[in-house]
Amino acid sequence: MSEQKPALYYSDYLQLETLLACQRPKSNINGRPAHDELLFIIVHQAYELWFKQILFELDAVICAFHSKSVDESQVHIAADRLRRIAEIQKLLLAQIRVLETMTALDFLDFRDELYPASGFQSYQFRLLENRMGVRAEYRHVYIPGVPYYANLSEEHQRLVRESEAEPTLFQVIQDWLERTPFLDMHGFDFLGEYVKALRSSGEERRIADADMKAILSDEFHQSLAKQNRRRLSRRAMLAALFISLYRDEPILHPPFQLLTALIEMDEQFTAWRYNHALMVQRMIGTKTGTGGSSGYEYLKGTLEPHKVFPDLLTISNYLIPRSKLPPLPEDLKQQLAFWFSVNAASSAMERGK
Amino acid sequence: MSEQKPALYYSDYLQLETLLACQRPKSNINGRPAHDELLFIIVHQAYELWFKQILFELDAVICAFHSKSVDESQVHIAADRLRRIAEIQKLLLAQIRVLETMTALDFLDFRDELYPASGFQSYQFRLLENRMGVRAEYRHVYIPGVPYYANLSEEHQRLVRESEAEPTLFQVIQDWLERTPFLDMHGFDFLGEYVKALRSSGEERRIADADMKAILSDEFHQSLAKQNRRRLSRRAMLAALFISLYRDEPILHPPFQLLTALIEMDEQFTAWRYNHALMVQRMIGTKTGTGGSSGYEYLKGTLEPHKVFPDLLTISNYLIPRSKLPPLPEDLKQQLAFWFSVNAASSAMERGK
Amino acid sequence: MSEQKPALYYSDYLQLETLLACQRPKSNINGRPAHDELLFIIVHQAYELWFKQILFELDAVICAFHSKSVDESQVHIAADRLRRIAEIQKLLLAQIRVLETMTALDFLDFRDELYPASGFQSYQFRLLENRMGVRAEYRHVYIPGVPYYANLSEEHQRLVRESEAEPTLFQVIQDWLERTPFLDMHGFDFLGEYVKALRSSGEERRIADADMKAILSDEFHQSLAKQNRRRLSRRAMLAALFISLYRDEPILHPPFQLLTALIEMDEQFTAWRYNHALMVQRMIGTKTGTGGSSGYEYLKGTLEPHKVFPDLLTISNYLIPRSKLPPLPEDLKQQLAFWFSVNAASSAMERGK
Amino acid sequence: MSEQKPALYYSDYLQLETLLACQRPKSNINGRPAHDELLFIIVHQAYELWFKQILFELDAVICAFHSKSVDESQVHIAADRLRRIAEIQKLLLAQIRVLETMTALDFLDFRDELYPASGFQSYQFRLLENRMGVRAEYRHVYIPGVPYYANLSEEHQRLVRESEAEPTLFQVIQDWLERTPFLDMHGFDFLGEYVKALRSSGEERRIADADMKAILSDEFHQSLAKQNRRRLSRRAMLAALFISLYRDEPILHPPFQLLTALIEMDEQFTAWRYNHALMVQRMIGTKTGTGGSSGYEYLKGTLEPHKVFPDLLTISNYLIPRSKLPPLPEDLKQQLAFWFSVNAASSAMERGK
Repeated sequence: MSEQKPALYYSDYLQLETLLACQRPKSNINGRPAHDELLFIIVHQAYELWFKQILFELDAVICAFHSKSVDESQVHIAADRLRRIAEIQKLLLAQIRVLETMTALDFLDFRDELYPASGFQSYQFRLLENRMGVRAEYRHVYIPGVPYYANLSEEHQRLVRESEAEPTLFQVIQDWLERTPFLDMHGFDFLGEYVKALRSSGEERRIADADMKAILSDEFHQSLAKQNRRRLSRRAMLAALFISLYRDEPILHPPFQLLTALIEMDEQFTAWRYNHALMVQRMIGTKTGTGGSSGYEYLKGTLEPHKVFPDLLTISNYLIPRSKLPPLPEDLKQQLAFWFSVNAASSAMERGK
Repeated sequence: MSEQKPALYYSDYLQLETLLACQRPKSNINGRPAHDELLFIIVHQAYELWFKQILFELDAVICAFHSKSVDESQVHIAADRLRRIAEIQKLLLAQIRVLETMTALDFLDFRDELYPASGFQSYQFRLLENRMGVRAEYRHVYIPGVPYYANLSEEHQRLVRESEAEPTLFQVIQDWLERTPFLDMHGFDFLGEYVKALRSSGEERRIADADMKAILSDEFHQSLAKQNRRRLSRRAMLAALFISLYRDEPILHPPFQLLTALIEMDEQFTAWRYNHALMVQRMIGTKTGTGGSSGYEYLKGTLEPHKVFPDLLTISNYLIPRSKLPPLPEDLKQQLAFWFSVNAASSAMERGK
Repeated sequence: MSEQKPALYYSDYLQLETLLACQRPKSNINGRPAHDELLFIIVHQAYELWFKQILFELDAVICAFHSKSVDESQVHIAADRLRRIAEIQKLLLAQIRVLETMTALDFLDFRDELYPASGFQSYQFRLLENRMGVRAEYRHVYIPGVPYYANLSEEHQRLVRESEAEPTLFQVIQDWLERTPFLDMHGFDFLGEYVKALRSSGEERRIADADMKAILSDEFHQSLAKQNRRRLSRRAMLAALFISLYRDEPILHPPFQLLTALIEMDEQFTAWRYNHALMVQRMIGTKTGTGGSSGYEYLKGTLEPHKVFPDLLTISNYLIPRSKLPPLPEDLKQQLAFWFSVNAASSAMERGK
Repeated sequence: MSEQKPALYYSDYLQLETLLACQRPKSNINGRPAHDELLFIIVHQAYELWFKQILFELDAVICAFHSKSVDESQVHIAADRLRRIAEIQKLLLAQIRVLETMTALDFLDFRDELYPASGFQSYQFRLLENRMGVRAEYRHVYIPGVPYYANLSEEHQRLVRESEAEPTLFQVIQDWLERTPFLDMHGFDFLGEYVKALRSSGEERRIADADMKAILSDEFHQSLAKQNRRRLSRRAMLAALFISLYRDEPILHPPFQLLTALIEMDEQFTAWRYNHALMVQRMIGTKTGTGGSSGYEYLKGTLEPHKVFPDLLTISNYLIPRSKLPPLPEDLKQQLAFWFSVNAASSAMERGK
């Protein structure tokens, strides 16, 4: 550390003077201090800090995957980052419990002062949804004809709309899945083998299922996609199925961990939305929210359409028991194993151990 | 401790030999051991142990409130017991995270062995719903025309049907609320004062709201009740509103804590049902469950109808800010205070302190 | 809402522009961006926001209790506020899990940039300890001869030292306990009856225990106090014992809830300190911290001495089973009951119900 | 499913009739029913069910690693199983919160009935400690001269003593680390390169540190081992350091995840022990436990000595920033990469994509 630099001080590093001056309760300013307003402000500020962190992690993952070839070590790192997001999401959920220590009556002490500000105006949460891959056309509509970003400031509207055009987690993951080379290499026809396995294990009946047809037939997949019941391409679905079935192969374990982390993150956002909706109902009943919203009903309405990777959950529909898995050809298997483990024995001998 | 009794041993006290012999994985018996079946069994056994405990606490509360006069100290104790249930419910939720360490593919290793057994056959959970106050006619229907207990054993069907006739938490709480003497004592007309307060605070408009009419008009309340949009009687609703508005009065704080604990418990069961549904979807996709059920969709369908105290949440609709609360007459206030605090000063003087 | 005021916007209300500009990673500034530094900053900023909230709640409780007579309704409110702190403490604990998603190697990427800043420089945490009642002379010494606030800025040193002279939660709670009138009123000699109960229930032997003597004898209590093995006065201890034994009496339930909330808060700070110590060990091993500290060992050393209410835990030593409790005289009992419940029957009759 | 087999019923599968008959409160039997005894029993039974599950997972990991060559896919699976244990440990921690809803006074209602039974008699927990690798000679002594299993039944003493001789998680992990071939293959001398890196990055001073000497010098390591300040062999320590430093190499990521999961499990057991100790203190003060133990002090005393992998935490002491890491020779690096990723480009071309 060079001698000239002044010693770094914790409080300056964290900008505490500024940070701790950002809480300005309206009820104080208006001369009717309400004890619980500080809690209300701090909970929301903590949310926004964590949203910033989640956005940062999402961007790093999207950036790493937004290229034609993704280095294998990136898969590990991406899974780690998504798991970090999941850990943060547990905080977001726990923050609801903290906010619920404020009762509806306590909230009334300052609720009117906040009108028409509302949590719906969190532009970072809109960015976050867009970066994940919630598409404008899938969004649960709040007021028909009014865009979801209408109540934001002009500057924030611009940011949110621009983000609609940027690459999303959904898109880069789909591209990466579609690039998976395993589906049809070295003469191993995954889909063909899979159907054979279904047949030979007495599950012929399943082949005709509507569910099953969605993965077996391009046409059927298209029709589901048109009804917005499938978002991932069929090729990406097949790759996800291959990874899920053969995840015990060392090279497929990291991709499997990545898919699991995506499901986890998606599920936790959904759980947070649901618990958030319950909390809003508890706090303001069925009346309109501070932003003029009908709160509970709207939030509940976002649960299904704002999921980004529901298709990954449907992969469970297509699994077959390990005991009936079509074996991989030996040469493909070797490619899937680490080169190292194949050669470890001989190396060890060379080392004379 | 008498000398003759043999010394008690932890393992005997807890019946560990028997308890730890209750895990009999089908996959072992059938000669195809699946590693994760033990986890599956133990998670469900832990659920059933906790259901037993919740039933025990519920019964104690129902029993204490199932009489014409409830001793004030019982209100505290009941709130404590409901808070214990809420703490157990956090465990139930956390157990879902543990079960999710089993993947869909792992489950497939033994899933077929369990057919047609299913979590829907948990008679304790049915008892629990009935003791809470989920009424048969409100239940989300699984198969039209088939009663919800149809897949239980005869003995369990009997238990569950008998429980339909027993006093419920909903019923005893409603009765207790209706008995609240505060609403119209000593010439204090709560409803009249409440409407006056709405008027004088410029909320005249709210009085005509459909929402508001539900508490102001018996007729309107009846019409909502007929559509199953209100379950609590209007008198019980008014008592809950009175308690919520004047909860800072010492004697009303315990009843307020009780109402809060009821909301908490109801909300947590709902959150558990939702997370359980998400987990089922993750584990078996949209295919039918081990009990022939369509799992996710059914479970999601139970969320709203199986809530027992949704009306308590709507109380938030009727709150008015503390600053506009009609003051209680002094003599009523004194009754609401502890006798002690009124007399503390003089007593202290007597003690010569 | 008056027409002239500009509409309040969520982002302005929360000062988001300023708040989200407070993250300035040193590694970026120094041109060697380390991905995990943003997480490190945001975790610590979230800590400081929550510390501010905890300080605010503590101050409100201290303020309410810092008077000769505490209104009974204040006891409820104080218990609620301490429970809110406990809920926030769960967040603090959960934030450790989030920070642990950063590994020791990741931390090394920017750790040297932060030298000599350190978490020991959180002046809010020092204030918090002081407001709770950690006394300067009880503090675990980090560097012999160097005051615990030595590494703070001058301004923060001033704040922290001033706080040493302000009323603490410990002090106002002790005063309030000492004022409890129940111990010797209306001819009920609590201590005398308590000793009689011990004798008559065959626990004569316990009376001679060193533990027991600490509450029975002023002299013995003094000797323990001199060794810093008791901090609460003997009178306050007796009041806490009385409350704990007779908590089923309605008027004593709120004070019991308050004592429980104090224990809970103290226990959670201790648990957080311990988990924090484990995390520091994981992150930087046994080497010195960023502030030149030996981290783990120091933090572990604070566990016992920085507890504020350990004496409340020892109350368990003095409990006797409910079945052996000396009965309260009827007139005292009536004082302890709500006046209301005593008179409820007759009032109900008057109402003609 | 064959037609002859009777349909499986949930309740029979889980042995519910037997399981739900295992709760036999002594206070009921003795005619003085204490409400909270059922909770006490069920919490402990749930603990024992989870201990059984943890033992099962531990055994599976030990079994997989108890061979001269561990298949690479086993490393993934082992990490998954240890993470499952960590998820269960969160439940164990949450169960403490549930038990704490029973107060010390409630416990007194039946505490004497349990004498001398005690949680110290959980033979499964002793087995669990032994399977982890807590060595008899490291155990915190409760009563000098009395073996830790003395208060168990004869049958359980036998089980516990036998387990002392069985392979432990500690042992198989140490063996596996020692077998790591990376330390000195293909002319790459890890230790030499590491010391060079320390020197060239101006950390010469660190080389002379006592801490550093522990990994650089066999002699010094031995002296620490004799004082029980190191348990892992020096070769195992070096392997763990290599893995921690080069974990971004794909083949080293699974081993790194395994080490992380071991630290996590160890840390969580420690956290549970600490919280358990705090709970015991709250429940029974500083008096002796139901088993004649002094509870809190004993439990606190187990924290450090019963850690199994504290050495893995000290690895943080030896890390050097990524930017100063000695580069791996290209041929070693290729071995560490997946064979596949090296060959992916050409394969893709062959596929004509």
